[in-house]
Amino acid sequence: MPECRENGWKKEDLSQIIAKLEDSYNSHKGINHVDGLNIPTSESIHEIIKDLFALVFPGFFGKIQITTSSINYYAGNLLDSLYGKLSEQIKRALKYRCTLENCCNCQCADRAGSLAAFLLESLPEIRRLITLDVEAAFDGDPAARSVDEVILSYPFTKAITVHRLAHVLYKKDIPLIPRMMSEWAHGVTGIDIHSGAAIGESFFIDHGTGVVIGETCEIGNHVKLYQGVTLGALSFSKDEKGRLIKGEKRHPTLLDDVTVYANATILGGKTIIGKGAVIGGNTWVTESVDDYTKVSIGKPDLIFHRKKA
Amino acid sequence: MPECRENGWKKEDLSQIIAKLEDSYNSHKGINHVDGLNIPTSESIHEIIKDLFALVFPGFFGKIQITTSSINYYAGNLLDSLYGKLSEQIKRALKYRCTLENCCNCQCADRAGSLAAFLLESLPEIRRLITLDVEAAFDGDPAARSVDEVILSYPFTKAITVHRLAHVLYKKDIPLIPRMMSEWAHGVTGIDIHSGAAIGESFFIDHGTGVVIGETCEIGNHVKLYQGVTLGALSFSKDEKGRLIKGEKRHPTLLDDVTVYANATILGGKTIIGKGAVIGGNTWVTESVDDYTKVSIGKPDLIFHRKKA
Amino acid sequence: MPECRENGWKKEDLSQIIAKLEDSYNSHKGINHVDGLNIPTSESIHEIIKDLFALVFPGFFGKIQITTSSINYYAGNLLDSLYGKLSEQIKRALKYRCTLENCCNCQCADRAGSLAAFLLESLPEIRRLITLDVEAAFDGDPAARSVDEVILSYPFTKAITVHRLAHVLYKKDIPLIPRMMSEWAHGVTGIDIHSGAAIGESFFIDHGTGVVIGETCEIGNHVKLYQGVTLGALSFSKDEKGRLIKGEKRHPTLLDDVTVYANATILGGKTIIGKGAVIGGNTWVTESVDDYTKVSIGKPDLIFHRKKA
Repeated sequence: MPECRENGWKKEDLSQIIAKLEDSYNSHKGINHVDGLNIPTSESIHEIIKDLFALVFPGFFGKIQITTSSINYYAGNLLDSLYGKLSEQIKRALKYRCTLENCCNCQCADRAGSLAAFLLESLPEIRRLITLDVEAAFDGDPAARSVDEVILSYPFTKAITVHRLAHVLYKKDIPLIPRMMSEWAHGVTGIDIHSGAAIGESFFIDHGTGVVIGETCEIGNHVKLYQGVTLGALSFSKDEKGRLIKGEKRHPTLLDDVTVYANATILGGKTIIGKGAVIGGNTWVTESVDDYTKVSIGKPDLIFHRKKA
Repeated sequence: MPECRENGWKKEDLSQIIAKLEDSYNSHKGINHVDGLNIPTSESIHEIIKDLFALVFPGFFGKIQITTSSINYYAGNLLDSLYGKLSEQIKRALKYRCTLENCCNCQCADRAGSLAAFLLESLPEIRRLITLDVEAAFDGDPAARSVDEVILSYPFTKAITVHRLAHVLYKKDIPLIPRMMSEWAHGVTGIDIHSGAAIGESFFIDHGTGVVIGETCEIGNHVKLYQGVTLGALSFSKDEKGRLIKGEKRHPTLLDDVTVYANATILGGKTIIGKGAVIGGNTWVTESVDDYTKVSIGKPDLIFHRKKA
Repeated sequence: MPECRENGWKKEDLSQIIAKLEDSYNSHKGINHVDGLNIPTSESIHEIIKDLFALVFPGFFGKIQITTSSINYYAGNLLDSLYGKLSEQIKRALKYRCTLENCCNCQCADRAGSLAAFLLESLPEIRRLITLDVEAAFDGDPAARSVDEVILSYPFTKAITVHRLAHVLYKKDIPLIPRMMSEWAHGVTGIDIHSGAAIGESFFIDHGTGVVIGETCEIGNHVKLYQGVTLGALSFSKDEKGRLIKGEKRHPTLLDDVTVYANATILGGKTIIGKGAVIGGNTWVTESVDDYTKVSIGKPDLIFHRKKA
């Protein structure tokens, strides 16, 4: 890097910096999009998430109070503007992939509208699932005072709502946007759920910071996780050129009624945690576990050393 | 979920989506507040937190520079507007509970004003505690260059400030707001302190991501925690119907001068960590530890396998 | 704390609260800057980070689309305003230290301009490094669909970009600002990299929540970390008065091509992880590891207990 020319620098020298930066934009093109596509923007995706929350939880998020007589107007207004924003961002994402793949007959704009509508049509079903999730949270946490408290203040509510929305777009094979959505939730909650993970009904994650749920996880109904749980990959397959193979099932399956306590690690695409199993805190599990089995660490090998008072 | 009708979708179909969404608002009422109460809003709680930071740390947060001659005006102005915002949100929280409990003679508005004033009157005492906390952070972290750096950049400062404020409201039994405040801090810092936890003087958490401090924890003076420490529950008592019993002491007690290193887990309402004890990293502690005792994991059972270079 | 005078409180009593708060500003000066310096503000530092992202990743962040013909204008405009903001904040940081150290001949304003220019001149080199980092992320994560996805949605991109920028300012010994920058990234990503850590080329952290990289870490090229990894201090040296000694090498060294899996802990300033070594998940490493050695936990001592179905 250049020496720091302390005290001798003048603002006019900015033009040299600009010139060098332009060189950099030419020599390291991979991280800029000059003359590039209109890719989806983080700002728009965050706006869309905010609008979706206002539709999923009317009266909880957003500043407007809602009454029976106004709800039609409220939802219609929001849906209408959201439809436009969603279509635009999905169109950008589809065009982005088409350009990469030299496909030019993809009718991106038409498909984007249909896909945006598909997500909006899915909202009643998503609301049904989220109702079950927040009830599971209330039932599963002794500190929860009410379902309202769960909705207003639990990071889990944000994480699972974004996941259920992003997963719909993931299954429709829309590029970029599902991951941008889930990483927004990850940043806000510390809970990292890949938008590809298939999660059953009445799910709950308590506390949540540090949880990682990999792309190819399959999770049954009534599953409960605590902070720091990793549902991850054991190892990655490589092709003959030593490159990682993408798309295999790399992450575990959890059947119905499984509970996984804090900081447990469960790894591997062939690992199946049986129905009703309980995985204790701090465990390291890389093989399948039978139904209704409780797994815990042995009496930990701790050393007690008495200091002078 | 509905099939994706690609290419065939028209924007006019939005009215059908609106109709279905309205059905959903009727069939899954638990997650909306149509015709409901004015519950506290996240936006207002965040504004209140911002104002409280400006009052606790004048000259550090907020864009205004403060002088001896302006401080009276500055604090008065802020306090006045904050009093209004706080009263309104507390009133909403109290009315919310009254409605749930069919109580109608609670004088919510009057009580809300008094409770808001109570928090503001507590600010000098809270500032005294926070001064001790940031000094403990400076003394306890070799990377800290100054107390100012601790205030300006340590996530701990945000977490403990919000906790000391939220805990005052928690002890006054105000619903919803204390938890909304602590979850704001959790989201911003990765440190999850339940507003119910009782924390002594000169506390410090270094790094902090993943720390969980449960509702019924009791923590003495001069206690220091590192990232990933869980002070959690061992198991939950259930009533005769199998529902979790809420309100018991479920989380540990740490006496004065305890240090807990990274990723240690201490569980159970009857677990007491004695004065001056040091709990080593990665330990799993579910029983009480004597005063002045150092607990560490044994020599870990590691396997070393030499690969080809 | 004062008793809560429920129902009896009047808004006029605010003047008493203001008076007590003023007393507090006098008695606990450590956490306010009345009549103090203009220290750097979080808001300005965040604005600066946003502008730097727009310069490093044009077309990815910010709302403006960029073309070959507009890039000169775009970069020039941004650089010009950024130069002003950076100079001002660096000047505040330098003056802050000068005042503490009673130095009055430091030409802070001149030096600040040169240091701001130095960071801007470093941008091409920083862009080269970040290009390698995002390529390492794409190569190292089977879930990554494209480099664009890595830039748009991986928390690692935010964390390493801020680190590479903050590290330049750290090496120039600018107070407060580097740490404020890295703590912004910590808050947003859960990845806590001290701005002092020296990190080689083609670095990658997957998932990232809970990662801690200490101030005196030295990390080679092509190193890959997973979530929850701590590269920390083993113990702190104290001086004859029992105060922590600041400035020693307290954190480990990782040579080229090292991989560290989730939730591993590596501690100590003398601990060197050899070239090509692989540190398994959940390990606890406090001594050096030879080149090309794989370290893993032994078969964990788990207890399987079959419950009634």
